[in-house]
Amino acid sequence: MNTKLLALGTMAFDAIETPFGKTGKILGGCATYIGLAASQFKVDCGLVSVVGEDFDEAYISLLKSKGLDLTGVEIIKGEKTFFWSGKYHNDLNTRTTLDTQLNVLTKFKPIVPEHYKDASMILLGNLDPNLQLSVLEQLKQPKLVVMDTMNFWIEGYRGKLDEVIAKVDILSINDEEARQISGTHSLVEAAKIIQNMGPNYVIIKKGEHGALLFHGTQIFCVPGLPLEEVFDPTGAGDSFIGGFIGFLTQNQTYSFEAMKSAMVVGSAMASFTVQQFGTKALESLTVKQLYQRIEAFKALTEFEIEIT
Amino acid sequence: MNTKLLALGTMAFDAIETPFGKTGKILGGCATYIGLAASQFKVDCGLVSVVGEDFDEAYISLLKSKGLDLTGVEIIKGEKTFFWSGKYHNDLNTRTTLDTQLNVLTKFKPIVPEHYKDASMILLGNLDPNLQLSVLEQLKQPKLVVMDTMNFWIEGYRGKLDEVIAKVDILSINDEEARQISGTHSLVEAAKIIQNMGPNYVIIKKGEHGALLFHGTQIFCVPGLPLEEVFDPTGAGDSFIGGFIGFLTQNQTYSFEAMKSAMVVGSAMASFTVQQFGTKALESLTVKQLYQRIEAFKALTEFEIEIT
Repeated sequence: MNTKLLALGTMAFDAIETPFGKTGKILGGCATYIGLAASQFKVDCGLVSVVGEDFDEAYISLLKSKGLDLTGVEIIKGEKTFFWSGKYHNDLNTRTTLDTQLNVLTKFKPIVPEHYKDASMILLGNLDPNLQLSVLEQLKQPKLVVMDTMNFWIEGYRGKLDEVIAKVDILSINDEEARQISGTHSLVEAAKIIQNMGPNYVIIKKGEHGALLFHGTQIFCVPGLPLEEVFDPTGAGDSFIGGFIGFLTQNQTYSFEAMKSAMVVGSAMASFTVQQFGTKALESLTVKQLYQRIEAFKALTEFEIEIT
Repeated sequence: MNTKLLALGTMAFDAIETPFGKTGKILGGCATYIGLAASQFKVDCGLVSVVGEDFDEAYISLLKSKGLDLTGVEIIKGEKTFFWSGKYHNDLNTRTTLDTQLNVLTKFKPIVPEHYKDASMILLGNLDPNLQLSVLEQLKQPKLVVMDTMNFWIEGYRGKLDEVIAKVDILSINDEEARQISGTHSLVEAAKIIQNMGPNYVIIKKGEHGALLFHGTQIFCVPGLPLEEVFDPTGAGDSFIGGFIGFLTQNQTYSFEAMKSAMVVGSAMASFTVQQFGTKALESLTVKQLYQRIEAFKALTEFEIEIT
């Protein structure tokens, strides 16, 4: 059974400000969240990313201790790690980017390690579509490719972005991005248009309102788990998709039913992430806690109606 | 079995503009939507409302043909019916009120007909809390009282509003109103605060994102049904609560489990309302269509996860 999962994405320093507090430079980046989430499952997960010489050895150790393979993480001597700083507003639904220092990202040429070229599951995290494409071209015959992106690439790299979208099985984006890509307000319409661009499945994330999975005429919805306190939304979407693909990789089934379950697993994962700053919650999360929260999702949505 | 349901609310003329078109004066008002939704069930539903001499006889006939008892609807001679006109913006989530003519509403003194004083289920639609209280005082011993309200009463009538809230079993409001009443952003916190004000159950409606039911530490969430086109959101909340209470009245059970089912029924009802202008969809809706849509909600939310 090939449970190799390859994830492309950033590893970063983040500095985050929310109404509840402020961090210094902490561990961030989409590959980091994806890896930590996926490591909850019985998978052989490798990351493809880049960091600078200033990246903490302790972070490397942390990720390795979770069983993540970092052979594909390049460390560029004399360069600095990608840095992002942002401030969330009072409702936590909107944020302002305070600073972005691309640093090593400008020199990033992702190389897939030899032993991951036959990975069955691929996650192309939110990055320049040229890099996503270059990773795809290095792979043998993945069973499932999931792709994430964001408004920046939709606005400025549309041609290349569409080329990658045409090659993936699942596109995972948020509601505003779905509307931007499709040029339509209705998410049902948007998912149709995107499926016509290539992907068989479209995931539309709606933040605290949950997420939708579209496949042909089928739709599945997982609501956001109502939480007493959301502390820091950073990494919620990456935790979601990391949990989603980690679960699918472990179970090696790719049916719509399996993906529905994976949507709930991803949402449960994200619900932990937002309860603490940065990656803190994922670092200490246990499988038992995760499954308890999945039970909470069941209780939240299950109902019986007798047809009279 | 007492399946008497009494609903207090407005009957109105609405003029609605959406990105899809524009109506002349059409049938509106919360009691109208509530009555039409509740009439899908085996209930004995009476409305308490007021209209002017200009109210169409055809509308009266329509409501009567649905089995609604209009003994409690006062027709004031020489006066005009309450009129509301609004325009929805492109995303349909926000609207601008173009005109409000209170007309007969300023003279409304609700009188509960003798044969509804022993009603088991009461719905206090969105109106001046003084009128809601006056109806409550005319009743014998209802089993369940549901109350709706809006920002206008929260801002200007807080003392009287709190007095009514203290007397009801279920408060049904939207997310912004929940935050306004409770003074807190978290909906979980808001529902706690509101339960401490009196109601054992709190329903928080989130428009296209669905609705939440809170009871002690239990939470149930029904997502919005993703629709290809939302045509006119007017009356969605009233259709929801009318379907909710109609279903409960028919089944005469008031458990949390029963209310979860009723939440789905209400959401299904509202999903029809928004697909046509005004009350059009509810007027022609059949029980069979309703239950088919409830099945769609089941398909939308059901999942299985094997705990490994």
